[in-house]
Amino acid sequence: MSIKTITITGAAGQIGYQLAFRIASGQLLGPREKINLKLLEIPVALDALNGVAMELDDCAFPCLETVTVTDNASVAFQDCNYAFLVGAKPRGPGMERSDLLIENAGIFSVQGTAINANANRNVKVLVIGNPANTNALITMSNAPDIDPKSFSAMMRLDHNRALAQLSTKTDSHVTSIKKLTIWGNHSTTQYPDIHHATVKDQQAIDLVSLDWMKNTFIPNVQQRGAKIIQARGLSSAASAASAAIDQLRDWTFGSAENDWISMAIPSDGSYGISEGIIYSFPVICSEENYEIVQELEMNELSESYLKASEAELLIERKTVEHLL
Amino acid sequence: MSIKTITITGAAGQIGYQLAFRIASGQLLGPREKINLKLLEIPVALDALNGVAMELDDCAFPCLETVTVTDNASVAFQDCNYAFLVGAKPRGPGMERSDLLIENAGIFSVQGTAINANANRNVKVLVIGNPANTNALITMSNAPDIDPKSFSAMMRLDHNRALAQLSTKTDSHVTSIKKLTIWGNHSTTQYPDIHHATVKDQQAIDLVSLDWMKNTFIPNVQQRGAKIIQARGLSSAASAASAAIDQLRDWTFGSAENDWISMAIPSDGSYGISEGIIYSFPVICSEENYEIVQELEMNELSESYLKASEAELLIERKTVEHLL
Repeated sequence: MSIKTITITGAAGQIGYQLAFRIASGQLLGPREKINLKLLEIPVALDALNGVAMELDDCAFPCLETVTVTDNASVAFQDCNYAFLVGAKPRGPGMERSDLLIENAGIFSVQGTAINANANRNVKVLVIGNPANTNALITMSNAPDIDPKSFSAMMRLDHNRALAQLSTKTDSHVTSIKKLTIWGNHSTTQYPDIHHATVKDQQAIDLVSLDWMKNTFIPNVQQRGAKIIQARGLSSAASAASAAIDQLRDWTFGSAENDWISMAIPSDGSYGISEGIIYSFPVICSEENYEIVQELEMNELSESYLKASEAELLIERKTVEHLL
Repeated sequence: MSIKTITITGAAGQIGYQLAFRIASGQLLGPREKINLKLLEIPVALDALNGVAMELDDCAFPCLETVTVTDNASVAFQDCNYAFLVGAKPRGPGMERSDLLIENAGIFSVQGTAINANANRNVKVLVIGNPANTNALITMSNAPDIDPKSFSAMMRLDHNRALAQLSTKTDSHVTSIKKLTIWGNHSTTQYPDIHHATVKDQQAIDLVSLDWMKNTFIPNVQQRGAKIIQARGLSSAASAASAAIDQLRDWTFGSAENDWISMAIPSDGSYGISEGIIYSFPVICSEENYEIVQELEMNELSESYLKASEAELLIERKTVEHLL
């Protein structure tokens, strides 16, 4: 069995500190797959990152072979099989959303270029740093020699949050819920859609009211991140890391039978969504690949949500188009 | 399969934030064992703890059944099968070590009493909060109806740190090192002992110099915690949580064949160590129980280290004896 290389950017941050240890303990690829971890940070965070690397050593993880600490993207992505792009510039005080998009576009274009030059040709790249969908678009656009289907933005946190909300409402375990979808952008325009979902084999839509769906469920999922910050005083880290592992694991080993997951991927025009943006669809993963679930019936309400999120992503693309 | 109850104290802290998610993802009891998590905090940390519980929900973990958030020890330990006692009062500025011992003794005597009254009779209690050995002694002493062998203080972090140091020195993977021991107190008097250790079936002691062992290896392991704080600006959290899972998992399911682990347990007089203190020995775990490895040859140097750590623990006990 060959050793797999896993890269984490922003690895000294809160999400990275969760992700690195869960991956090194074998939760992404299983306990028998040997891994090399490559951790990237900006220069001011290298001391802290060295501390993370010391703690990784101190765990004596059986499947961890080497840990590389670097501020050089080319080193970080050398032979990379799986990349978690966590590091991103957060929105500062007085910063416009367009400034945020442009600042991050600069970071992700450098990383896309480094991936193109150094990563394994079958790399899987998951973008977690926000604005994740457009950051993924920038990364992909700067890695023209890598299959566009190798790039995804994380929607699994939203997907898992929607499972949790519906589980509480219907007093059923999350494992009894299937075929829920998050459509669109990883932002407040995302559309958590229960029209095709089942709870213990019953149609979810028959178990809740339209009012609850529109005025409680959808906003709760869309705004869950803010609620976590309110309670913890810090943004979601452990749940984000957990979702990242879920998404990349299913993408690699296949999603569960008789179910699907939500992944933000390059649109191929399915459901009338413009090509050229990274949009979340329901997908079935198998054999290291994925297919968009086709021909789901969409009502007028759903269509309007899909279009609103598409519109937001088209505007985001316009803001950074000089970097594409 | 019955649902297991796992209690974490100080669950909103840095170690708890790592521990809760790794346990809820199935890393302690395996992915098929259903678990109820009970999280205890002091009243001022309950908002943050609610945030942790929200994130646990948002992970949609298949094996997680319920999460309880409380500041009431009786509620936290109700039907508890496994307890991780993480929460402890840290040493404040100008605080003497004896003050620290007494402050913590107050916390752990309350928890011992609550365990005695509420926990499952076969509970396993692992004390992580420092001073861990004496905190474990206080806890055990206040739970007279529970088998004393149900209480342990965490030495696995020191054990794993020693594996990592020897691995680097001998350029071998941690998995090739066996039969290393940490003796004594989880403090700077602990004795990391390689006299019986093997590296790829060679005697470790033949692969390194006496000078390296005495003047590099032993102090490096003893003072590793301070080094991590220096690099990260924060104390070891992820590696402490990882070691806690390792120790309780091996205690429950058995340690690896042809090897042993280090656990701080009530001394039974083995190796001439006084009874009535919680002292780390080499132990072999099997069938939910453990036995101290007997008749290891100890040289004069080793004996002196063992005695020094014993002396420290006897002084710690004297400081808190009015609470025993």
